[in-house]
Amino acid sequence: MSAKPILGLTMGDPAGIGPEICLSALHNGAVLAGCIPVLFGDASVLSRIQKAALADLRSVTLSEFQDLEKITGPMVVDCGAIDGPSVRPGQISAACGQAGYIYIERAIAAALKDRIHGVVTAPIHKEALSLAGVKFPGHTEIFTALTGAKRSCMMLYSDKLTVSMVTTHIGFSDVPEKLSVERVLNVIELTSAAMRQILRRDPNLGVCGLNPHAGEHGLFGNREEELYVEPAVKQARERGIRVEGPLVPDSAFTTNVRKNFDAIVTLYHDQGHIPFKMLAFDTGVNITLGLPIIRTSVDHGTAFDIAWQGKADPTSLFSAISVAANLARERAGKSKEANGPNFSTVDAGRKSKFLTAV
Amino acid sequence: MSAKPILGLTMGDPAGIGPEICLSALHNGAVLAGCIPVLFGDASVLSRIQKAALADLRSVTLSEFQDLEKITGPMVVDCGAIDGPSVRPGQISAACGQAGYIYIERAIAAALKDRIHGVVTAPIHKEALSLAGVKFPGHTEIFTALTGAKRSCMMLYSDKLTVSMVTTHIGFSDVPEKLSVERVLNVIELTSAAMRQILRRDPNLGVCGLNPHAGEHGLFGNREEELYVEPAVKQARERGIRVEGPLVPDSAFTTNVRKNFDAIVTLYHDQGHIPFKMLAFDTGVNITLGLPIIRTSVDHGTAFDIAWQGKADPTSLFSAISVAANLARERAGKSKEANGPNFSTVDAGRKSKFLTAV
Repeated sequence: MSAKPILGLTMGDPAGIGPEICLSALHNGAVLAGCIPVLFGDASVLSRIQKAALADLRSVTLSEFQDLEKITGPMVVDCGAIDGPSVRPGQISAACGQAGYIYIERAIAAALKDRIHGVVTAPIHKEALSLAGVKFPGHTEIFTALTGAKRSCMMLYSDKLTVSMVTTHIGFSDVPEKLSVERVLNVIELTSAAMRQILRRDPNLGVCGLNPHAGEHGLFGNREEELYVEPAVKQARERGIRVEGPLVPDSAFTTNVRKNFDAIVTLYHDQGHIPFKMLAFDTGVNITLGLPIIRTSVDHGTAFDIAWQGKADPTSLFSAISVAANLARERAGKSKEANGPNFSTVDAGRKSKFLTAV
Repeated sequence: MSAKPILGLTMGDPAGIGPEICLSALHNGAVLAGCIPVLFGDASVLSRIQKAALADLRSVTLSEFQDLEKITGPMVVDCGAIDGPSVRPGQISAACGQAGYIYIERAIAAALKDRIHGVVTAPIHKEALSLAGVKFPGHTEIFTALTGAKRSCMMLYSDKLTVSMVTTHIGFSDVPEKLSVERVLNVIELTSAAMRQILRRDPNLGVCGLNPHAGEHGLFGNREEELYVEPAVKQARERGIRVEGPLVPDSAFTTNVRKNFDAIVTLYHDQGHIPFKMLAFDTGVNITLGLPIIRTSVDHGTAFDIAWQGKADPTSLFSAISVAANLARERAGKSKEANGPNFSTVDAGRKSKFLTAV
């Protein structure tokens, strides 16, 4: 096996921009210099759009899932999840939702069997997923369930701002009841461990409050800051984590405040996503923390409006691949230092064939 | 009377940075070129900090409230609301909260009597206000109540981004129940009218959804987008307003999306404040829409940590004064065009002595 990590790419919703950006990745010099990409998708879809992606499949090995024992170069694992000619680009459909889910399921299975060293996901469409009867609202939840992770969270990483989230794909009104000291503390710990891996030093973290002005000591809201954030920050500090909070949400992301923090823990989807997308749109990387496997993702959606037209920008996918490759190398390096096959992660450790081959 | 509008400044919490930035305004060339500032405050406080503000009171007329009949130049209306020597800079106190409220009350009374043509407020401290037993959470609510406005909203204005808010100083968990078609429509209409005044053309507006990804057609949340935002947008369009929505909140503020809108209507405090403060910290202006009087404000707090030290930046106050002066001139101009004393505002019209004097 090569010294380069093998990364599984999932093709995403076949009707979106996932197939074309994944095809670009299979032919990109920088990507191929850093990893061996293995695309979990459907050859019948890819062959229809290879012109749009300015790439063709001739140089790529087509493979069945069972062939993953021997990976020597870029590969497409043909999952047979959907009939290519039936796909209507830019359309929401149950069939595409189902196919997108199958690619993920296969890639996770391969990662859990150590055939690949991480998974990088192209965008799925949440409505298509729901139409297909998949009960998970998004990637983060699928990965958490299928890998049996005890705790996990979403982190959006970029060189301008990094945010992690205590809650993600739930309704606005469901956020307060999902908060707890344990949950906030988990996300602080996961974020701290992940940033230590990425930065190779102890990170400085901030944690946002929930209410306007962080509640002004109970003036607004139900004291969520005192009930959940303050105790979690206190306990995290007792465990040696450098963390401050509750921060006033509307000043936490100003230049002068955010420069003090390597990452900011946010309490709900848009508290983190609004500032992150303003600063790092299309270049950010979504990392799921707390899994026994490495998983990163693009930071954008299926972009149905420009799907299959060759207009999609693969930058975010390339960033996600680069971060996953670095995390895989970091894991392998750590295991080497420890003189044993200890692929320890943020939250769980397991044996890996990768290590024995490096 | 001068052709320049007379603007009441309220000194804000005496223990904060309000007194020093207001003193700066009374001596600033650009401010004095555009308006006659009349500061509602306490001379005993101002005299203690005039050195820090690099300004002195000798050139400013001290006045009692009843003297406001004849305003010929910059003036301090000595409200006698607090004993200067007793103020401890940077400390939250009921006495300071009470004083801050009295300045506002006096300025509103003067504006309602047409003695002044607008009010520009320095920051108060919400906890001090609460300690003083004032039942309003902030300026917007005080102005709405004391002017008897039927509907009002907060708008944050800057040349980079302008946002208005359907809800402001309430707890996170109280937001969903405060939403209604009527309330969203009111804020769309108020924002449209205000931006038409400022830009002198029909503005393009966007309205955010509430849930992650604007709910993805009911996948997250309780269909607040379909229940409140969509009908309000539809009705506003029927009334000739150019408005789009519900926008996906986390993409609405990216460069590519926000450039399509002159202002974005947001549903809760931090949905608007987080992106606004990232783009226009310390330079933005807070405007209360829907009042029978003009009211603008600084976009920052009392900054107790640097109060009375001469470090406070008056830029936001000067911007707020400039916007108020422009709005006052616009009103006077409109009234002239209409050939009569019709000081019509965004939401209410009343007679004004200003008009007769211009």
